Amino acid sequence: QIDSARLWGSIHETAQFGGTAKGGVRRLTLSSEDKQVRDWFRKACEDAGLEVHVDALGSQFGLRKGRDMSKLPVGIGSHLDTQPTGGKYDGILGTLGALEVIRTLNDAGIETDAPICVVNWTNEEGSRFAPAMMASAAYVGDFTTDDILSRKDIEGTTVGQALDRIGYRGDKPVGFQKLGCFVELHIEQGPILEAEGKTIGVVDSGQGVLWYDGKISGFESHAGSTPMPLRRDALATLSEIVLAMEAIARKHGPNAVGTIGEAVIANPSRNVIPGEIAFTMDCRSADGAIMDALDRDLRAAIAEIAARRKVEVKIDLVWRKPPTHFDPKLIAAVENAAKTLGFSSRRITSGAGHDACNLNTIMPAAMVFVPCKDGISHNELEDATQPDCAAGTNVLMHTVLAIAGV
Amino acid sequence: QIDSARLWGSIHETAQFGGTAKGGVRRLTLSSEDKQVRDWFRKACEDAGLEVHVDALGSQFGLRKGRDMSKLPVGIGSHLDTQPTGGKYDGILGTLGALEVIRTLNDAGIETDAPICVVNWTNEEGSRFAPAMMASAAYVGDFTTDDILSRKDIEGTTVGQALDRIGYRGDKPVGFQKLGCFVELHIEQGPILEAEGKTIGVVDSGQGVLWYDGKISGFESHAGSTPMPLRRDALATLSEIVLAMEAIARKHGPNAVGTIGEAVIANPSRNVIPGEIAFTMDCRSADGAIMDALDRDLRAAIAEIAARRKVEVKIDLVWRKPPTHFDPKLIAAVENAAKTLGFSSRRITSGAGHDACNLNTIMPAAMVFVPCKDGISHNELEDATQPDCAAGTNVLMHTVLAIAGV
Ligand SMILES: NC(=O)NCCC(=O)O
Ligand SMILES: NC(=O)NCCC(=O)O
Repeated sequence: QIDSARLWGSIHETAQFGGTAKGGVRRLTLSSEDKQVRDWFRKACEDAGLEVHVDALGSQFGLRKGRDMSKLPVGIGSHLDTQPTGGKYDGILGTLGALEVIRTLNDAGIETDAPICVVNWTNEEGSRFAPAMMASAAYVGDFTTDDILSRKDIEGTTVGQALDRIGYRGDKPVGFQKLGCFVELHIEQGPILEAEGKTIGVVDSGQGVLWYDGKISGFESHAGSTPMPLRRDALATLSEIVLAMEAIARKHGPNAVGTIGEAVIANPSRNVIPGEIAFTMDCRSADGAIMDALDRDLRAAIAEIAARRKVEVKIDLVWRKPPTHFDPKLIAAVENAAKTLGFSSRRITSGAGHDACNLNTIMPAAMVFVPCKDGISHNELEDATQPDCAAGTNVLMHTVLAIAGV
Repeated sequence: QIDSARLWGSIHETAQFGGTAKGGVRRLTLSSEDKQVRDWFRKACEDAGLEVHVDALGSQFGLRKGRDMSKLPVGIGSHLDTQPTGGKYDGILGTLGALEVIRTLNDAGIETDAPICVVNWTNEEGSRFAPAMMASAAYVGDFTTDDILSRKDIEGTTVGQALDRIGYRGDKPVGFQKLGCFVELHIEQGPILEAEGKTIGVVDSGQGVLWYDGKISGFESHAGSTPMPLRRDALATLSEIVLAMEAIARKHGPNAVGTIGEAVIANPSRNVIPGEIAFTMDCRSADGAIMDALDRDLRAAIAEIAARRKVEVKIDLVWRKPPTHFDPKLIAAVENAAKTLGFSSRRITSGAGHDACNLNTIMPAAMVFVPCKDGISHNELEDATQPDCAAGTNVLMHTVLAIAGV
């Protein structure tokens, strides 16, 4: 059994790094707050006897030796970065839960056959730099390290510059730490477990993701003297796109969602018809065929809107992550651990993307979900209970013990 | 006859203060570029023998003595501030045209009975501080000087602070310079004169304006794991409001327009459903009854959208300017000057607001319009021809001579 109070203490101690007035956390990846939590995490790992290394994209790896060092380590962990107005649990539970597993094994003097490696992946959230789950994507070879290092935030700072600024461009090449499998604990970020009164979500699949960058070029013009029929209004165009995406996602639902999260009017003024807008789109489904349909319908709708409104709309697909189907043996190991420990559980699909989804493309991976309050995440009000967090961490530990061998 | 080349030279010389790569001007009110053009204008007025004073809101007044100083001066002028991506003519033609009238009278040794006062009104555009036509509104008593001094830009800088920063908080109380009437020369900012091949627009009326500040409070949530039916998306709400406003303006058209020029998502992130958006609305009509209908329909539409989407939408009317009906005698004087000089003309309604509209509420006022290319304004591509600008300035001069008496 893990130490529930110690886990809870770690979560709340680190929540001060970027803690907000509303009880959330603002800790954008590679920010100074991210440096603070990384420094804390490195020290905690070292204190727990782990050998800590940092790779070229800043991901932190803490290795606990196994009896049989010829075996590949069992990877556990998640991320410590947050959304601009994020919560205290998203990613953090999985990372500090992994640390708690190590601490518990240490206290109990338990050695495992295979080594265990705790990981804090850089930029899981994808808010500051696209794509999300950036470092794990490079780890599995979806992107080169150089490509990722050159990605820019909205201010033009590259990942490389941001790493250097906080001193977290590590000396190990991406992929230096081989892993045999990966198990990630996370809050559900959706309403199902809570609604059904289940403690553990045994994640068997994850939605695929489409991310687009869009730009609308209409024509700036006087709000008072430009007759309605002569307008080429970029914001009215965006508005039709937002509602079209909503309708398309609903049409393909319930297994589809679509969101426009960012939209910035260039040179805005009250009495100027917006001429240019940059925006992003996020579409998801657990079904690859539906993802294709979302893409097709969206492009057709946008083309129709642009032509009718005589504006130019450019759409770039900047990221495509196919749906995830986790490893059946690991899924069974998670399910078994939950059962052994006496927790209610159900199979579940992850609506969010996770580093485990990337790792699953080159090694067996699985995930453990615990309920979060009202399904709320990516919000400062994100919440979870201490018993649920502890339950998930115990399931993680017992899954690891089953895989690593005692 | 005014000196067309000299007028053209002044317009292009001052266009350097805030000149943009695309040939437009970015000279937000009370910015350092605005200080530059104000310094230039003060010197030019002094060189033309005018006695220059600045009032507590930064408006510049240059007085040319008349034979009969018991008569109130004839006011002419406009503004030198621009939109963030504005043109070289909006306001500038009217201010430098007024200066050109003075220079021409000086050269010709013409004295007038009534004095003439050239004015550069502070913050006509309303982009940095609301409302538009701010200083002339205070001049006519629509707002107190203290109220206007406390208005804030998006960074929280007040009008008072901005005036102090550029040294343009004048020592004269607002209203110190009494005027007998006001005539303003301006580009049309609409397509009618050009389309009909007319040189002079004799402005007989102006649209009323409604400005609102709006705020949408939905709920931030995860773009991947929040099912479509559970969302309270602030951007989808805004999108419906934008399209509702467009439909309402069209329904009441052709004599109505509606624009959302600013919309800012709080803490935007690609994978977060927007939770909060601040936005502005601008609705206009030359008919007071239609203005009331616009307000009513808009509020009803917004209430319905907000209730259906379970989001909160707050709407504040921050400015209401009733339609303008200019002074019949001054209108006739402008029409007569155009006719005498042999220019084609037509009566016209101003789609934009102007300082002359404010002054018209306490004194006789009128306006002279000249065509602008494709009706484009509040755009860096705004354009007008040298002959049209000269024609308008000649009409202004002959109108002034008729009113002031030679
Ligand atoms: N788990 C999580 O919130 N990941 C962020 C990436 C995404 O799914 O948008
Ligand atoms: N003339 C002009 O563009 N005025 C700005 C105020 C407005 O009408 O929006």
